[in-house]
Amino acid sequence: MALWSGRFVEGADESTQAFGASLPVDKELYAEDIAGSKAHATMLAGCGIISTDDAKAIQDGLDQIADDIESGRFTFDVNDEDIHMAIESKLTEMIGQAGARLHTGRSRNDQVATDTRLHMKRRALALMQANCRFRRVLLEKAEACLGIILPGYTHMQHAQPVLFSHHLLAYSWMFARDFTRLKAAYDAADANPLGSAALAGTTYPLDRFQTTELLGFSHPIPNSMDAVSDRDFLLDIMYAASVSCLHLSRLCEEIILWSTSEFGFVTLSDAFSTGSSIMPQKKNPDFAELIRGKSGRVVGDLVSLMVTLKGLPLAYNKDLQEDKECALDAVRTLEDCLMCASGMIETMSVNEEVMFAQTKRGHLAATDVADYLAKRGVPFRRAHEIVGHLVLLCEERGCQLEDLSIDDYRAECDLFEEDIMDEMRMDKIVDARKTYGGTGTDAVRAQMEEAAASLREDEGICM
Amino acid sequence: MALWSGRFVEGADESTQAFGASLPVDKELYAEDIAGSKAHATMLAGCGIISTDDAKAIQDGLDQIADDIESGRFTFDVNDEDIHMAIESKLTEMIGQAGARLHTGRSRNDQVATDTRLHMKRRALALMQANCRFRRVLLEKAEACLGIILPGYTHMQHAQPVLFSHHLLAYSWMFARDFTRLKAAYDAADANPLGSAALAGTTYPLDRFQTTELLGFSHPIPNSMDAVSDRDFLLDIMYAASVSCLHLSRLCEEIILWSTSEFGFVTLSDAFSTGSSIMPQKKNPDFAELIRGKSGRVVGDLVSLMVTLKGLPLAYNKDLQEDKECALDAVRTLEDCLMCASGMIETMSVNEEVMFAQTKRGHLAATDVADYLAKRGVPFRRAHEIVGHLVLLCEERGCQLEDLSIDDYRAECDLFEEDIMDEMRMDKIVDARKTYGGTGTDAVRAQMEEAAASLREDEGICM
Amino acid sequence: MALWSGRFVEGADESTQAFGASLPVDKELYAEDIAGSKAHATMLAGCGIISTDDAKAIQDGLDQIADDIESGRFTFDVNDEDIHMAIESKLTEMIGQAGARLHTGRSRNDQVATDTRLHMKRRALALMQANCRFRRVLLEKAEACLGIILPGYTHMQHAQPVLFSHHLLAYSWMFARDFTRLKAAYDAADANPLGSAALAGTTYPLDRFQTTELLGFSHPIPNSMDAVSDRDFLLDIMYAASVSCLHLSRLCEEIILWSTSEFGFVTLSDAFSTGSSIMPQKKNPDFAELIRGKSGRVVGDLVSLMVTLKGLPLAYNKDLQEDKECALDAVRTLEDCLMCASGMIETMSVNEEVMFAQTKRGHLAATDVADYLAKRGVPFRRAHEIVGHLVLLCEERGCQLEDLSIDDYRAECDLFEEDIMDEMRMDKIVDARKTYGGTGTDAVRAQMEEAAASLREDEGICM
Amino acid sequence: MALWSGRFVEGADESTQAFGASLPVDKELYAEDIAGSKAHATMLAGCGIISTDDAKAIQDGLDQIADDIESGRFTFDVNDEDIHMAIESKLTEMIGQAGARLHTGRSRNDQVATDTRLHMKRRALALMQANCRFRRVLLEKAEACLGIILPGYTHMQHAQPVLFSHHLLAYSWMFARDFTRLKAAYDAADANPLGSAALAGTTYPLDRFQTTELLGFSHPIPNSMDAVSDRDFLLDIMYAASVSCLHLSRLCEEIILWSTSEFGFVTLSDAFSTGSSIMPQKKNPDFAELIRGKSGRVVGDLVSLMVTLKGLPLAYNKDLQEDKECALDAVRTLEDCLMCASGMIETMSVNEEVMFAQTKRGHLAATDVADYLAKRGVPFRRAHEIVGHLVLLCEERGCQLEDLSIDDYRAECDLFEEDIMDEMRMDKIVDARKTYGGTGTDAVRAQMEEAAASLREDEGICM
Repeated sequence: MALWSGRFVEGADESTQAFGASLPVDKELYAEDIAGSKAHATMLAGCGIISTDDAKAIQDGLDQIADDIESGRFTFDVNDEDIHMAIESKLTEMIGQAGARLHTGRSRNDQVATDTRLHMKRRALALMQANCRFRRVLLEKAEACLGIILPGYTHMQHAQPVLFSHHLLAYSWMFARDFTRLKAAYDAADANPLGSAALAGTTYPLDRFQTTELLGFSHPIPNSMDAVSDRDFLLDIMYAASVSCLHLSRLCEEIILWSTSEFGFVTLSDAFSTGSSIMPQKKNPDFAELIRGKSGRVVGDLVSLMVTLKGLPLAYNKDLQEDKECALDAVRTLEDCLMCASGMIETMSVNEEVMFAQTKRGHLAATDVADYLAKRGVPFRRAHEIVGHLVLLCEERGCQLEDLSIDDYRAECDLFEEDIMDEMRMDKIVDARKTYGGTGTDAVRAQMEEAAASLREDEGICM
Repeated sequence: MALWSGRFVEGADESTQAFGASLPVDKELYAEDIAGSKAHATMLAGCGIISTDDAKAIQDGLDQIADDIESGRFTFDVNDEDIHMAIESKLTEMIGQAGARLHTGRSRNDQVATDTRLHMKRRALALMQANCRFRRVLLEKAEACLGIILPGYTHMQHAQPVLFSHHLLAYSWMFARDFTRLKAAYDAADANPLGSAALAGTTYPLDRFQTTELLGFSHPIPNSMDAVSDRDFLLDIMYAASVSCLHLSRLCEEIILWSTSEFGFVTLSDAFSTGSSIMPQKKNPDFAELIRGKSGRVVGDLVSLMVTLKGLPLAYNKDLQEDKECALDAVRTLEDCLMCASGMIETMSVNEEVMFAQTKRGHLAATDVADYLAKRGVPFRRAHEIVGHLVLLCEERGCQLEDLSIDDYRAECDLFEEDIMDEMRMDKIVDARKTYGGTGTDAVRAQMEEAAASLREDEGICM
Repeated sequence: MALWSGRFVEGADESTQAFGASLPVDKELYAEDIAGSKAHATMLAGCGIISTDDAKAIQDGLDQIADDIESGRFTFDVNDEDIHMAIESKLTEMIGQAGARLHTGRSRNDQVATDTRLHMKRRALALMQANCRFRRVLLEKAEACLGIILPGYTHMQHAQPVLFSHHLLAYSWMFARDFTRLKAAYDAADANPLGSAALAGTTYPLDRFQTTELLGFSHPIPNSMDAVSDRDFLLDIMYAASVSCLHLSRLCEEIILWSTSEFGFVTLSDAFSTGSSIMPQKKNPDFAELIRGKSGRVVGDLVSLMVTLKGLPLAYNKDLQEDKECALDAVRTLEDCLMCASGMIETMSVNEEVMFAQTKRGHLAATDVADYLAKRGVPFRRAHEIVGHLVLLCEERGCQLEDLSIDDYRAECDLFEEDIMDEMRMDKIVDARKTYGGTGTDAVRAQMEEAAASLREDEGICM
Repeated sequence: MALWSGRFVEGADESTQAFGASLPVDKELYAEDIAGSKAHATMLAGCGIISTDDAKAIQDGLDQIADDIESGRFTFDVNDEDIHMAIESKLTEMIGQAGARLHTGRSRNDQVATDTRLHMKRRALALMQANCRFRRVLLEKAEACLGIILPGYTHMQHAQPVLFSHHLLAYSWMFARDFTRLKAAYDAADANPLGSAALAGTTYPLDRFQTTELLGFSHPIPNSMDAVSDRDFLLDIMYAASVSCLHLSRLCEEIILWSTSEFGFVTLSDAFSTGSSIMPQKKNPDFAELIRGKSGRVVGDLVSLMVTLKGLPLAYNKDLQEDKECALDAVRTLEDCLMCASGMIETMSVNEEVMFAQTKRGHLAATDVADYLAKRGVPFRRAHEIVGHLVLLCEERGCQLEDLSIDDYRAECDLFEEDIMDEMRMDKIVDARKTYGGTGTDAVRAQMEEAAASLREDEGICM
């Protein structure tokens, strides 16, 4: 029997009831539902609204139910619309009238908002931790790889040589920004709706500050209508997850390319590869592909709630029942992806020689040759043009800039001296980029320290 | 042991394996996987590639497995990555070497594409049927309500009186268009990839036309690389479902408004309403809200696969494993929403007097008064202005156009005669709109017949 | 002639060039491009990389160009791909070789990132200011309306009476959260990429901290590859704008409903209404509808860049040229919407009697009647059921709870006393909700002060 | 002065008016607005509603306006809300009262729907033509390249050798499907709303079938409320454009990869490449990147209208003014992308030797070696395992399957004979895939003919 059947003369049929039920989704929130109810009962007793005996009975009953759910002894009734109903009806069955008093001064509207916020705080924290672990992996890989040079790409064309560590660190900064977004989502969830009741507050002299403290929220929500209708905190966490998954899609795209026969820059461990049912030679970067593909899922989750929220009047509308499945999916997906990506990067072999061999293609020294002239007084635009001609000459001859003779150079511009040849060594080119944030070895070392400090700070927040 | 483990020295750990597994999602496709395998075996035997004994053993084994799955006796192994593997490894366990021959000339790439297409054809057909049933409900309601007048709205303001049947029929045409999109999605799925193997076709002399016929596909896909990488048919069905859910969101928005105290145009049956845990008087149009809210979910599903497909090179990539969950979710959601909306509309009471009472507000006769003048030679723009002034006069006096005296009318324009009073009767205004597609009773009757004919045609296609 | 034509033997045709050009979009960034170039020149001279005479010539030239653009004298050349090229080629035309030295140690990759960040900081700040102005309007309206009671809604059904001020304040808290998101977007943009050059840093001894200070950035970006490829800050501002537009869509939905004949709660000023070309009586809430509709546009903008970023490898790819149009559109749309919504709310009349009249429908006192029993010892669930029966009785008689006699009450439960009649006065019901965040007059007054304090703090940040 | 100002006492201020105006967007529809008005006037005269003299004056006036707009002589007034108003007010200025009669029996609601549908039919047809031209280019390239072999990829790993023509043809089938979707969008637009007036039809005895014929629509829309509120046809064209842009994103991703130093499979012409402002050697596949990036924009356009339509009640709402900008943007973007991609593919050089050289890596013969055993009686799963071990052996020795000796083969399985060596030639492997849709030369030739026939049929529809 539904909690609200007093004024109804007819019930819903089974399939309609199943359509309306949220239990399959929201039972994941059982622990928070119990925690919220226990805090509510404590507060009710503290304010003299229920007796301390009733409060005790409620809390013992809820503890028993928590045990039963965790141990798998709890049986969910198909007639229970949601986890709140499932727990409360069991409680009343167990302890009688005291159970029926638990809902005093509370509505499912503020109850579900409380449960969801508690749950999302926990999950956001877990994501912040997973984010830190992944950044730790990236940083350790960057440290281990210091000295390895590969071509830096723009437009997927060889541009200038860079340190592989520098390349990995670029990702670590993306994920550092993701931490900020996850933290913002955590903060958005961290506000207490309990005590807002259906939409208007309640006539019972509740102490919302007490439940706020008991449940570890930072503050009570200052408007009861906003409290029951606000789902921004779910958008925030799905947005944070979406951006993080987009970052992962970029990294995984590179890992997939690097694993090709043509690039051959890295070798994934067998544990992060799979084979083919028909082609015996295949070793596929399945997990990198899956992570790349799952970015779509999380963006879809975000869009889904945005569409649902569009045009909704105040206060609570049942449309909001659609809030949890997408948010839980987004959170679970990012958690899994970060876990899997961590293992994949950790166990990935980097093929230093293959990377370096590619720096011998694509005239990676061209910018430095132009800078050479510019530093000798040629306006940069003119220097650029001269080197453009030298590159054309190389293309005709099928060689690289490093393979031209000094006479070839001087034929284009007589400011070239013998020392130009030395300027074109890859390690020299890399190390010449000494400015803050550049790819020179010393600059990268300093950058690593900065990244480590930022990571330590974030770990301090969440671990 | 995975099907492809020959060249691997190390396996994935459990959580990684779980991350990569699609079994929880694709086991919904078991019937199609078995049908596809049976057709493949028949064809292999027909082409002399395997013996008829082997084919017989395979088919008997598969029939047994189908029975076991349907009766719940089949136990899925956590080590099985997907439904294809689960069934094949069980088959080989049951019938030995013959089972191991089933995969001849086939890859999981064409197998999964075949299963998904078979399944989506079935689901698209079910959606076409649900669409027809819902249009039948709308049409019957429109027939039953003929004669009921309510204000027609633009900008949610009273515009001109219309028949409620006309209003409902507007929706029936939206859903008629949805049928076209669902049919297009069905057609898109209706092409056979089997025999494309991994991506390039196979060296076995398969007869792809035979499996095409056995499986009821309209034709084999003409390019093996396209066959294993194409997921357009899933986009098509999710797009069709999205538009249909958006249509439902519009209808449900109106039902929710009509159920308010302020409108009071309809009363939902108790079976399609729910109450409140705190407010004993509440009777909420929960199901209409849920359907409206679920439009977000389906749009999100569509976006999700679009993002996943963006930028994928040929041929098969593991990203595509993310194709099924969103598509199945979209299909299931639309099916449920149409079923629920059908019951809701069917059992909804229409409050004729309340609707009619609202036609007395908002000067619904204004256009007809302007037309009255225009038909007497006043250019329409000028007539519009004259009536605008009359409306202002009404607003000042707090009355309706019908309440002004003939002198008031003549003070603004002396072309008004006594008969203007009769022109302002709501039923007369409605019936004056006789043109094709208009809201006049005769025009609506003709429209109903047209809608019924279109529905019968679509039912002929899918039922 | 393009800046990079040295190695090319053939040019693009006109339509291809037009397809590739970004000038129509990025010329909006001219002021930031000039500011960035001036800072770069100052720093180059400060580091001894170019002469102070050259720096002076560059800066005077750029000032002249800024003047010319602002006064409309500047003619853009169709051959200029983008605003950077347009300005630099004009500069070189004006001042010769000195102009050609400006690009020393800089690439378009870091230049365009710098311009975009500077521009977005400015626009984010403008949005923060518009947000504060709008909240000020909401708050003033809430203050002006204190005392007006309307039905509070859940599921669009009358739930419990609330203060209209409380309802408006619910929105003010949504927009307060939007401020936080806009500020986060501002902070995300506030980092200096200049000096990162193409992707790897540069061999010139640039002082990135000097340009950081000159341009008012909070810090230089610590990784040059990240600096040229990061567009998170654009996602952040589009996300903030999306959520804010969704909030506006909710508010405008309500204003549209309140403006209907059926609700009649508010009257929009003529200045924020439009008429119909055919129906002389119409007064449409066009602007509220437009704002509601534009939420789609901004969500679409966000999705657009998310799709574009998915799967992009490092570092700069031309796909990123698609970053600005959507971001500028989102920012402009929110700015316009907030401006328009401010005027609309400011000039909107609130129809107090109409609102109050609706509190007499829908048994708004039901919760309080149940609470009445609960406070007298009836478990809440049982009290709820009793009131449910009373409501059913009212529905049968076509009356409200307030219209039943004390005997009717006592027939259901003998704990009812005469004082129940007084408990059902709407103002009493409202004021009984005294807890923090509730709708009682005192609680709302305290809430207003809290909202005002929060607004003042945010104004302090951005005004 | 607005067309609807009769009942208003106060006007909107300038910025509000600008916010509400659609002229900057909808002036692109001027030709259709004029065509629609001319047909309406002809019909009005034909039905005796206006005089033939008035109709003549209207049509001459509209022709004059069309000339003026095309020649740039027409000046748009900032006070005109939209193109309909701009043209009508000019017409009335030119021809007086006759102009004011044009709007008889018409509303802007049906007028704007008519204009938009006429315009979208034209644009959909242009897209169908561009689609055919692009498929022609793909087909010609496939024909020209017949014989070129490259590795076929799954998971971006070398899988089996395929013909480059086969690879290109896979794309041609994707675009053939896009044609179907574009045609469906054309058909969706092809229905006449004119005569539906504001929402309910009209009291004038209009002949909707006459305007249907005059404007070339296939039929009048059968429900006037649906006629003014339906925007499905815009979703349809944006969906068709989205999928087509996603297909282009996949092709361009490959072109970008193929243009890398690591792949080197193709060389883009200079006309479809650009350089770098800092790196003189760069030749970037900018246009392929832009096309890939623009897929986001078009998906965003689609999402934008979906969000806008969600939850809109009947009939016309101003939210719908947001329908055109996204649709026009999507259409323009796809048109440009197809044009640019056509030129890029047409002028792209294919590096046959480089492609072939890659077939020597990745053990491309592995499947055929397994098939060799399977054809000699080894169950396929066992054969797969044997070859897996041979591949492992190769990996240890750093060689390919082709490089192992016959003894190596026989050590794993004694069914291997000398002829296995010949089976591993790439051209032989390719040609062994003879089945329908396979990559064998003969099969590909047949496929080309099928693709050409399908293309000719589609060209017949649209050219």
